[in-house]
Amino acid sequence: MLRLRSRRTLALGAAGAVALSGVAIATNYAERDRSAQLKAQIDGHVPKNVILFIGDGMGDSEVTLARYYAKGAAGRLNMDRLPFRGSSIHYVLSPGPGPDYAPNYVGDSAPTATAWSTGKRTVDGRVSQGPSSALNVPGSNDGYRTFMEIARDRGKATGNVSTAEITDATPAGPSAHISQRACQGPDDTRKTCPSEAKENGGLGSIAEQQADAGFDVVLGGGRNRYAQPVLAGGATTVLDYARGKGYTQQPATADDLAKVSSLRRGKVLGLFSKGNMTTEYAPLQARSKAWQDAHPGFDPQKDAGSAETTCVETNRPANEPSLSDMTAKAIELLSKNRKGFVLQVEGASIDKRDHAADVCGQIGETVAMDDALGVALQFQRRNPDTLIIVTADHSHTSQMINAQQVPASLAAYATLKTVDGAPIRVAYGTATEEGASHGHTGAQVPVWAIGPQAANIQGTIDQTDIFGVLNGLRPSRGSGWWSHRPAYGK
Amino acid sequence: MLRLRSRRTLALGAAGAVALSGVAIATNYAERDRSAQLKAQIDGHVPKNVILFIGDGMGDSEVTLARYYAKGAAGRLNMDRLPFRGSSIHYVLSPGPGPDYAPNYVGDSAPTATAWSTGKRTVDGRVSQGPSSALNVPGSNDGYRTFMEIARDRGKATGNVSTAEITDATPAGPSAHISQRACQGPDDTRKTCPSEAKENGGLGSIAEQQADAGFDVVLGGGRNRYAQPVLAGGATTVLDYARGKGYTQQPATADDLAKVSSLRRGKVLGLFSKGNMTTEYAPLQARSKAWQDAHPGFDPQKDAGSAETTCVETNRPANEPSLSDMTAKAIELLSKNRKGFVLQVEGASIDKRDHAADVCGQIGETVAMDDALGVALQFQRRNPDTLIIVTADHSHTSQMINAQQVPASLAAYATLKTVDGAPIRVAYGTATEEGASHGHTGAQVPVWAIGPQAANIQGTIDQTDIFGVLNGLRPSRGSGWWSHRPAYGK
Repeated sequence: MLRLRSRRTLALGAAGAVALSGVAIATNYAERDRSAQLKAQIDGHVPKNVILFIGDGMGDSEVTLARYYAKGAAGRLNMDRLPFRGSSIHYVLSPGPGPDYAPNYVGDSAPTATAWSTGKRTVDGRVSQGPSSALNVPGSNDGYRTFMEIARDRGKATGNVSTAEITDATPAGPSAHISQRACQGPDDTRKTCPSEAKENGGLGSIAEQQADAGFDVVLGGGRNRYAQPVLAGGATTVLDYARGKGYTQQPATADDLAKVSSLRRGKVLGLFSKGNMTTEYAPLQARSKAWQDAHPGFDPQKDAGSAETTCVETNRPANEPSLSDMTAKAIELLSKNRKGFVLQVEGASIDKRDHAADVCGQIGETVAMDDALGVALQFQRRNPDTLIIVTADHSHTSQMINAQQVPASLAAYATLKTVDGAPIRVAYGTATEEGASHGHTGAQVPVWAIGPQAANIQGTIDQTDIFGVLNGLRPSRGSGWWSHRPAYGK
Repeated sequence: MLRLRSRRTLALGAAGAVALSGVAIATNYAERDRSAQLKAQIDGHVPKNVILFIGDGMGDSEVTLARYYAKGAAGRLNMDRLPFRGSSIHYVLSPGPGPDYAPNYVGDSAPTATAWSTGKRTVDGRVSQGPSSALNVPGSNDGYRTFMEIARDRGKATGNVSTAEITDATPAGPSAHISQRACQGPDDTRKTCPSEAKENGGLGSIAEQQADAGFDVVLGGGRNRYAQPVLAGGATTVLDYARGKGYTQQPATADDLAKVSSLRRGKVLGLFSKGNMTTEYAPLQARSKAWQDAHPGFDPQKDAGSAETTCVETNRPANEPSLSDMTAKAIELLSKNRKGFVLQVEGASIDKRDHAADVCGQIGETVAMDDALGVALQFQRRNPDTLIIVTADHSHTSQMINAQQVPASLAAYATLKTVDGAPIRVAYGTATEEGASHGHTGAQVPVWAIGPQAANIQGTIDQTDIFGVLNGLRPSRGSGWWSHRPAYGK
């Protein structure tokens, strides 16, 4: 009787989507117990392969927004289909002399990446290195060893994929140790953290450390960082340096990437744009009521939107691979290792477009990451000894508000028409002024998983707990209460 | 080495709290697999008892804020300790002639309460009644039968507890059927929805319907609604009417409630305040930068706070019972029924204080609901045939932002000192202007559970799915994929 005409689609990553018919609203509830099905998903063995998806800034608000816009009220994302779901607590540390540090409840992507990469916390701006400057010895990792280094040293294949510059904080987390995330290339390092430059006895820039780390497949943006000279003013770039370290396959376009067929010809360093990679959807800028009043003739396809505005979904140039393309290629190459592999995949610009109050950019990147997850899930079905974890580093500003509501005068908002044909309004209210960057938020973020040991992300966990799961957990001591925390009541 | 000195407390509801020592930050991750422990928590039997906690407006942001403020960065709430965790999607319907309705992605508490109460959706303002006015027959429930009515008709004991007026939308969800939530008492109904007044052949106001429903234990605020005359200008109030329906025990204070010892003396209707019950913490008002600049001498204990401000936690008068007191008494009385019981408990003013940008009020009510959950968890440990579900009806405005960040000029914010001794900043940015009500938001909300069939709240579910779980689910058809949704890939 009461039906919602919704274009319900099942995202299948690169494989495309299937349209379903309308969904009953009036009686849309499950009537059958799923206990046995969930129990069948619990597997305590150490996984052979691990794929970690990071939606940068992808809090529950960002997830819900992408689902409603692209799949409809009754639709589902791939991440919704994973059997285990927890929340990750992602506070970081405040600067201080140590050894004790106060918490900083709303941090940046460097210490949050450090948390799952190393199992330890640090301060804003720092990548997989301790919080106290007094503790840092140039040339040392400060005792912060990453899950990707551990996997490499166990003989597993390793991969690092991002739509950001591959030297950005999140992909740097498992692949570098440096006091400031800005030190992405050698020139950046000489300028911002000179004591960590290679010529001064340090580990070098993030790019150089990535070349030294020797992970098998490295794909993303950030060509300009790798084009910086290893020695000040010299002719040898980090790309050259990496080639010497075994990165003899350096695809620069989607076509180049498609042609890479094996790691036997060398490690793969694919950099597909000078900076961050291009977003899937064209930008649509949220604007404040004050801005809208001052610009009466604005184009709702570029600014603020309307109940009839939909996102332009064809923005990425064909020579840049999609996140799904990169994920599929990384899995294809890494899965040939008999000992298994570890792969991190970041959907980076969910965060970057949320900072910019670009609602379409943000949604498109969320959907793109979910599509890439679809690719990984297809691999996981054929290879059930694969653990997939999906989470975010921190939450972000965007909020869905009632489509009739206007937020505080300088808070930006935009309205879109979802696949349901209904209006959705999104507000951005944490920037100081119009056009300034909106900030990260502190709400716990989702974490989903499927595969061996996936049950361990269940409930409320610390972001650092993910490190243990990525490495493979030891067998439990007995049964008892499910939590590793002290039980309530005792 | 790196330790956070945090006052880590385990909330035990009325039983108080236990202070623990500091928590290691540097190596704070789990190293042991918990798969077997989680598997041991899965039980597909139909539960004997069901307790549903609703934190009104308690999204993931509100939960995280209360945890950080009251328990610290490394602390845990009782809800964090539940083994199963999902997310609930809570869109409602937009008005229309039907039979098809567009989704409204950000609804109010009436249709959201309808969703879990009846398994069906409806429009804003409406309580457990269909979305089309054309469909509504005065005197009919419109086919929207509630889980509490079903439990009552199965011979189970039933209870309804809230810190709001007990006639407010959320407690009305399982106990009344009416087109407008404002029709709380008979006078309200004659004014706002006269065709539904008893004298016009309707089911009557929410208060009258609650008296007719005959649930065993009804506790909350809202005495003024029940003091309205059943007939216009008459002397017989709804309280009198309810007495005639068997509500012969009508406690009005905490002491009165403590003395109620059995349902053999009659059903219990306890109304402890004229309107909504008093919040646990004294208000602390978030204020915009513009307001703060215009009021240079403001008291940070009342407005906007500071890095040294803590909430005043002694606001509720002694003659009003706490939510923990009401929960404990309801469980004590209802658990004597051999067939089991169903109980709904609402922490109502999380929402109301979030609307008002009252950060301390909001936090205190979240902690109070979590304390009441602690009471229920103690019962559940002794009575493992009890299912406890904890969720929210919708998410809300409050966002944690960096403690140095100032949001858009008319967005309100406040700063507090948490139990960690560190500053936390909370922004409210969805109201149109200073002092106006902030709005609900659309982000999916948490749902946790423990006990028989608790595994069914796992993953991403519709709010309507909770209805099925509250009633007890039928055995599954075979094993297969865990989800009741179509699996990805097919």
